[in-house]
Amino acid sequence: MPIKALTFDVFGTVVDWRGGVARAAEALLGPRGLDLDWGAFADDWRALYQPAMRKVRRGDRPFVILDTLHRENLVELLAARRIEGLSEAEVDDLNHAWRRLDPWPDVVAGLTRLKRRFIIASLSNANIALAVNMAKHGGLPWDVILGAEVTGAYKPSGEAYLGAARRLDLRPEECMMVAAHPTDLEAAASRGFRTAYVHRPLEDGPGREAPWPAAGAFDHAVADFLALADALEA
Amino acid sequence: MPIKALTFDVFGTVVDWRGGVARAAEALLGPRGLDLDWGAFADDWRALYQPAMRKVRRGDRPFVILDTLHRENLVELLAARRIEGLSEAEVDDLNHAWRRLDPWPDVVAGLTRLKRRFIIASLSNANIALAVNMAKHGGLPWDVILGAEVTGAYKPSGEAYLGAARRLDLRPEECMMVAAHPTDLEAAASRGFRTAYVHRPLEDGPGREAPWPAAGAFDHAVADFLALADALEA
Repeated sequence: MPIKALTFDVFGTVVDWRGGVARAAEALLGPRGLDLDWGAFADDWRALYQPAMRKVRRGDRPFVILDTLHRENLVELLAARRIEGLSEAEVDDLNHAWRRLDPWPDVVAGLTRLKRRFIIASLSNANIALAVNMAKHGGLPWDVILGAEVTGAYKPSGEAYLGAARRLDLRPEECMMVAAHPTDLEAAASRGFRTAYVHRPLEDGPGREAPWPAAGAFDHAVADFLALADALEA
Repeated sequence: MPIKALTFDVFGTVVDWRGGVARAAEALLGPRGLDLDWGAFADDWRALYQPAMRKVRRGDRPFVILDTLHRENLVELLAARRIEGLSEAEVDDLNHAWRRLDPWPDVVAGLTRLKRRFIIASLSNANIALAVNMAKHGGLPWDVILGAEVTGAYKPSGEAYLGAARRLDLRPEECMMVAAHPTDLEAAASRGFRTAYVHRPLEDGPGREAPWPAAGAFDHAVADFLALADALEA
């Protein structure tokens, strides 16, 4: 069965969340005399991401969009680090750093090639406003923004993948999940998606490169989106 | 308050539904020896569109996507015209004519200009698969596909507009509805959207041109998307 759509993870796979969040935090907080390890600040914020989504996935709270979870987590992080005195507008602005993350250098050229042959869809836990503003910022040429707000389900729950395929009127086997994270790909594969692993050695910062997956673990394992376009003859 | 997003009606405003549906019907049914007025066939199919959505808007049936309503209406139309013997796959293929409609000649150039300055969103009663396939077919450069399947509400119900603005994290006043149909624009305006009327004299076929709206009825009234880009300095 031919592949019709490529569905993309975004944070880490398409954009450098750690570098972008670190720079935004430094730009806001540095002039206040704070001198933090800004990468560690980004890591700490990100560390609250999975626990926050888990509450939704388990049904402990109704679905809320990621912008809301990110903001709650930021308020918690600022309190834990005893960073005080930010206005609501400043907290909002820092929260919207996730909307202004830069893509990795190969992304726009790779997506542009892949878009000629396939439907390219954002399939992220990001909500629509986050994803569309990020796309405008970075020039990401999505055909369609799917993801948690559209399906009401956070990855890696099964409905996150099956709901996306259904909205494209495709069978899961006609979709290929593209991600830098084996857990995302494994969850997609268990629902019938095909899989492409993209190696992003700098996602977690210098010197913290994740290992490549075992050979054959996924349908493709590539170094970047240009290599994916080569592999898929796009 | 500056405009951040333009939300577009699609059928009639962006694409020529009547011409495209008529050609698809002729391509499938003509070789079977049928010699119909193909434009009238398209009109009859389209005439079942509002009544079908009305049942959903009134709560007489749960929300179902437009592909489903279109297919039910097609089956009804074929029966009424005593057109028999089509396979399920042939009915599906004719139903998917809505996915292969051509844009009016100014659309791609106009959207490309408008996209540089604004978020451009499809805000149609079309479901996601219909809209994304139409965009691939016609080269429509949407930033995001919103509409009935995303909000669970068919235009002109208020939630169709308010739900779209909310998903963009914008106030209604930051959104401008673009449509060839006064009813759509009036409903959007009543929820706080700004409005741009686009004149599409051939939507209903030759010799059936709708009148221009009264001066001042909408924020803009233009002849095509290039004129809209001029008016909005995009």
